[in-house]
Amino acid sequence: MKQVNIGILGLGTVGSAVAEVLRKNAPAIAEKTGIKIAVKKVCDIKRKKTAFSFTADPGDIIKDHDISIMVEAIGGVNPAKRLVLAALAEGKHVVTSNKELIALHMDEILSAAAKNGVSVLFEGSVGGGIPILAALRDNLSANRISEVYGIVNGTTNYILSKMAEEGKEFSEVLKEAQKKGFAEANPKLDIEGYDASYKAAILASVAFGAKVKWNDVYREGIEKVTSEDILYAGEIGYAVKLLAVAKMVDQALEVRVHPALVPINHPLANVAENFNAVYVKGFPVGELMFYGPGAGGNPTASAVISDIIQVASSKSKIQNSKLRNLKIKGIGEIKSRYYIRLQAPDRYGVLAGISKAFADKKVSIAAVTQKETVGDTSTIVILLHEVAEQNLKAALAVIGRLPVVRRVGNVIRIL
Amino acid sequence: MKQVNIGILGLGTVGSAVAEVLRKNAPAIAEKTGIKIAVKKVCDIKRKKTAFSFTADPGDIIKDHDISIMVEAIGGVNPAKRLVLAALAEGKHVVTSNKELIALHMDEILSAAAKNGVSVLFEGSVGGGIPILAALRDNLSANRISEVYGIVNGTTNYILSKMAEEGKEFSEVLKEAQKKGFAEANPKLDIEGYDASYKAAILASVAFGAKVKWNDVYREGIEKVTSEDILYAGEIGYAVKLLAVAKMVDQALEVRVHPALVPINHPLANVAENFNAVYVKGFPVGELMFYGPGAGGNPTASAVISDIIQVASSKSKIQNSKLRNLKIKGIGEIKSRYYIRLQAPDRYGVLAGISKAFADKKVSIAAVTQKETVGDTSTIVILLHEVAEQNLKAALAVIGRLPVVRRVGNVIRIL
Repeated sequence: MKQVNIGILGLGTVGSAVAEVLRKNAPAIAEKTGIKIAVKKVCDIKRKKTAFSFTADPGDIIKDHDISIMVEAIGGVNPAKRLVLAALAEGKHVVTSNKELIALHMDEILSAAAKNGVSVLFEGSVGGGIPILAALRDNLSANRISEVYGIVNGTTNYILSKMAEEGKEFSEVLKEAQKKGFAEANPKLDIEGYDASYKAAILASVAFGAKVKWNDVYREGIEKVTSEDILYAGEIGYAVKLLAVAKMVDQALEVRVHPALVPINHPLANVAENFNAVYVKGFPVGELMFYGPGAGGNPTASAVISDIIQVASSKSKIQNSKLRNLKIKGIGEIKSRYYIRLQAPDRYGVLAGISKAFADKKVSIAAVTQKETVGDTSTIVILLHEVAEQNLKAALAVIGRLPVVRRVGNVIRIL
Repeated sequence: MKQVNIGILGLGTVGSAVAEVLRKNAPAIAEKTGIKIAVKKVCDIKRKKTAFSFTADPGDIIKDHDISIMVEAIGGVNPAKRLVLAALAEGKHVVTSNKELIALHMDEILSAAAKNGVSVLFEGSVGGGIPILAALRDNLSANRISEVYGIVNGTTNYILSKMAEEGKEFSEVLKEAQKKGFAEANPKLDIEGYDASYKAAILASVAFGAKVKWNDVYREGIEKVTSEDILYAGEIGYAVKLLAVAKMVDQALEVRVHPALVPINHPLANVAENFNAVYVKGFPVGELMFYGPGAGGNPTASAVISDIIQVASSKSKIQNSKLRNLKIKGIGEIKSRYYIRLQAPDRYGVLAGISKAFADKKVSIAAVTQKETVGDTSTIVILLHEVAEQNLKAALAVIGRLPVVRRVGNVIRIL
């Protein structure tokens, strides 16, 4: 039996779940894994009730030579980054689920860990309890990964799922979600795709061993998706999901977060409620999906404690391979199929005008459907063949000014 | 860079895929993982064309001191078992995807590995390319697993999916599947649930650290499932799937393979074609699903080569924790909800007779629907509340002899 002493920094949702699970389950974990995890100290800026020795001073953990692993559960960049670097400098391993910290500073933190001969693990930073980073790093190590994409934000998946089930509009479902605790009072980080973009950056970094920062990620949120879009998408066999996508195309990376039409028979289309799921394509494995709870104290505690066990049971440090500099494509270069909803007067010449504008920019139409007409305004749904975003944008600029078009309602990529 | 020399025993589907992937990708794998895998020798009873040094004598691999890992890709118990034990005795690590060998002799093989201070990994033995065993062993090590169940046989999932999509009968779809190469010429191992029972035994052993052998697994195949059953199940919101189930209830294990009605909104219900998926319940993580290709040379090669990298990169041997002796429940003790289809004459008194027989054995009916009547015979579908199998069997024995019942068509458990 090997004992490992840990300190927990931050007693919010994740930190207190880690402490509580260890208080109850440490003996069972020790019996199963041979690793006895002892919580030597817990730290928070506010005094909190805990079964463990409490301190308000992070230095009491960072400078304690009996503690070999520090769990960072403060969240956010400051002061988490400073404290993590201090712990690494003291030769401590660090386990964290802090997606913002890792998405912004992974390279610096991994370099500091390598310099000090210690490990940093951050499984809980993407997909909560889903062991997706370990899979990409260890269990699929034989593979050349070509694509990783998925649903990595529970709040937006909950909202889109409810909009689809109940035919309600975004703002109404958001309010209900806030009431039920599935969305924050300030939902901006979730609905505008920031949270998903952190996770996209981390997934891309781990899957491709590349330096991808949060601000490399193209980002669109779900705030423009209407119940009409979801209805029309459903009619042609698609669900609307907010996807984080990381893809290697011709030695360059695409990393992006945006709503997408997902074919209804694709496993991601059926991911309901606030669950997360990550789809992986690689050679030789083919296609895989990892599905589970993407957030919450207990699922994240599963990731954090499994990381602790991993660090404690390795005789050598865990190799965080050096991150490469890869070209990251601008969104203009990225090719996709598209769904476009627009409003036009209900008269002849509309389709001719639109078709010409697309053709002029070499954008090829796959299908057109005229939807309901209210007064003299028709809704038209257009599906496009694959096209580079820059060509689409150029065509839409023209179309937006056509006298036969009242409004471009929404433009959504098709998976 | 660390070099590891391996030998591959058996050049069937899996062995030749492993060799071929390594021939093409070994440099890329080395760059990514720091482990250079060199195939020093390959062996088969028949001379085969290969890029590597060939031998027909397994001893050339087992006795080669330069080889540290042997890949066993022969399949079946004999001579695989003897050769694996010989390699372990020579201090070689072993990687295998041989489900039959592991399901029948895991405990003996792990003990031999422990005695010789080497590791045995067998990720490819369950779920092909899905890294489910590593997840249970390493990445979810913080959890107390309560239940693992899933679709672990691609052939039967393909057949059941096609029956559902096309409304065809079992025998017709089986023939088509055989023509397309999705079912073996001798399909007994798949359709009667033997293959799934091997995987159930392995899943149970790894998830619960327990000695579970293949013949501890209760087994029913899909050969009695009719298109009628699938239709009626669909009408009440269920898909029919062949499930492998391993479950801890009151310190005792349930391990079983049988068709089951799965709620249509359960992630397993949408697993189509010949894909596999394993659902895991544990504390603190909650519920997870791992989905992917369950068989085939390339997906299995992903598992085998990832295992090789895992063994090669560990400074210490991989701990295969000692397997415990746990009580394994007899099928009679297991409780489940049930779907029952039976045929009865279209006249009064039928339901009264059936209801009384169930009530006499304390079996509680949840719903009854009379389906189509052909001639004077009605089909009746009955759903039961949870009941121990032994009570159900006792009731069905009575019901089968009732003059108001012509035939008990099928009895299927409900997930």
